[in-house]
Amino acid sequence: MFSESVNNLIKQFEKLPGIGHKTAIRLAFFVLESSMENAEEMAKAIVEARQKVKFCSTCFNLTESDPCKICADEKRDKSIICVVESVKDVTAMEKTHEYNGLYHVLHGSISPMNNVSAADIKIKELLERLKDDEIKEVILATNPTIEGETTAMYISRIIKPLGINVTRIAAGLPVGSDIEYTDEITLIKALEGRRNM
Amino acid sequence: MFSESVNNLIKQFEKLPGIGHKTAIRLAFFVLESSMENAEEMAKAIVEARQKVKFCSTCFNLTESDPCKICADEKRDKSIICVVESVKDVTAMEKTHEYNGLYHVLHGSISPMNNVSAADIKIKELLERLKDDEIKEVILATNPTIEGETTAMYISRIIKPLGINVTRIAAGLPVGSDIEYTDEITLIKALEGRRNM
Repeated sequence: MFSESVNNLIKQFEKLPGIGHKTAIRLAFFVLESSMENAEEMAKAIVEARQKVKFCSTCFNLTESDPCKICADEKRDKSIICVVESVKDVTAMEKTHEYNGLYHVLHGSISPMNNVSAADIKIKELLERLKDDEIKEVILATNPTIEGETTAMYISRIIKPLGINVTRIAAGLPVGSDIEYTDEITLIKALEGRRNM
Repeated sequence: MFSESVNNLIKQFEKLPGIGHKTAIRLAFFVLESSMENAEEMAKAIVEARQKVKFCSTCFNLTESDPCKICADEKRDKSIICVVESVKDVTAMEKTHEYNGLYHVLHGSISPMNNVSAADIKIKELLERLKDDEIKEVILATNPTIEGETTAMYISRIIKPLGINVTRIAAGLPVGSDIEYTDEITLIKALEGRRNM
C-alpha cells in the first residue's frame, strides 16, 4: 500500500510498546505531514538520549553520569537498598518523596515461564554490593505478582544468612479502593498483613 | 525528574497524535532500554521517510515520485476526481479496490471555528485541474461533518457552473449497525438518501 520508506517507518513505530499497526500508520503520517525540521529534531532526540543515557554501574538505574545522581547523593541513606524490577519503579518510588535510601534495579524478575532465571537479572551484582558493611536493610519492592514474589523469596533466602535485615513492601488494599470489589487474593494479603492499631 | 536528553525525547514523543505524557515516558524508556542500533534505525527511518516522501504536484497525495503512482497509472480512469480531506482518506478509498479514478487531497476542510478558509486548502489547485476537458465527474468525499459538508457545498457551488458532474458520497447507516441505536441526524440522512429498490 505504502512506499518502502513509509512501510519501514511504520515498522519502526510498531516496535514501540502499545503501538499497533493502525496507530503506527497514524504516527508515520504525522511525521510525513510535519516539517522536515520536526522530523530531524525527533530523530536527533532519539539518538542523543540513547547515546547519553547509560546504566549506573552500581544500581543499574538509567543515568547520564556514573555513578547516578542517587548513588552519588551524599544526603541519601546509604544503609538501605530498595530492590526493584525496573527503572520505571525507581521513578514511581522517587515520586513519593518518602524514601531516602539507595536503589538496585534487577532489570526483570525470575520467570521460568519466560525463561528468565536468577542468573539473567542483576542479583549477583546486588550480592556484590552487600559485601559493604554499611548496608543494614534490603527492601524487596518487586511487583506483587507470581514472578515478583518468586524473585523476592529467592533474594531473601540468599541475603538473610548474611545477617542483613530483609523486608518486603506491603501487599493489601490500595488507598481509595472498596473492600466489596477487591479480589480475594488481595483481601487475603491484606488480612495477613494486618497490624495493631 | 529525568535528565535533559530524556526530557527532550519525552517532549518529542508527546508531539505525536494521541500520545500523552505517560505514554511518551513509556516510549522514551523503551528507546533507552533498547539497543543503540535500534535507536539509530528508528531515527534513520524517520528522517529518510520524511526526506523521500513529498506531495504529488497534481493531486497532493503523499508520494516518493512526482506525479504519484495513482496519477501516473495509465489504467486509471482520468475522467473522475475523488476529492478527499486527507491523505489517510486516499488510503481508505484505495482499500475498497472499487474506485479506479484519480484523487485530489484538500489537506483540510473549511472551518471558520479553526480559522481555516477556502484559500487555506487545495481548492484553487483542484479548479486548475478542472480546466482539463477530460474530467467529467468530481466526487466530493469529504467527511460527513459540519466542516466536511461546508467544504463539499462550497466546492460544488463553484464547479457546477463549469458543466462538470458533481456528486457527494452517501451518508446513511453504516453496514452492520442497528437502527435502534443510530443517532437522529444519521437516520435523517439515511431517509433523505433513500433509493428505489
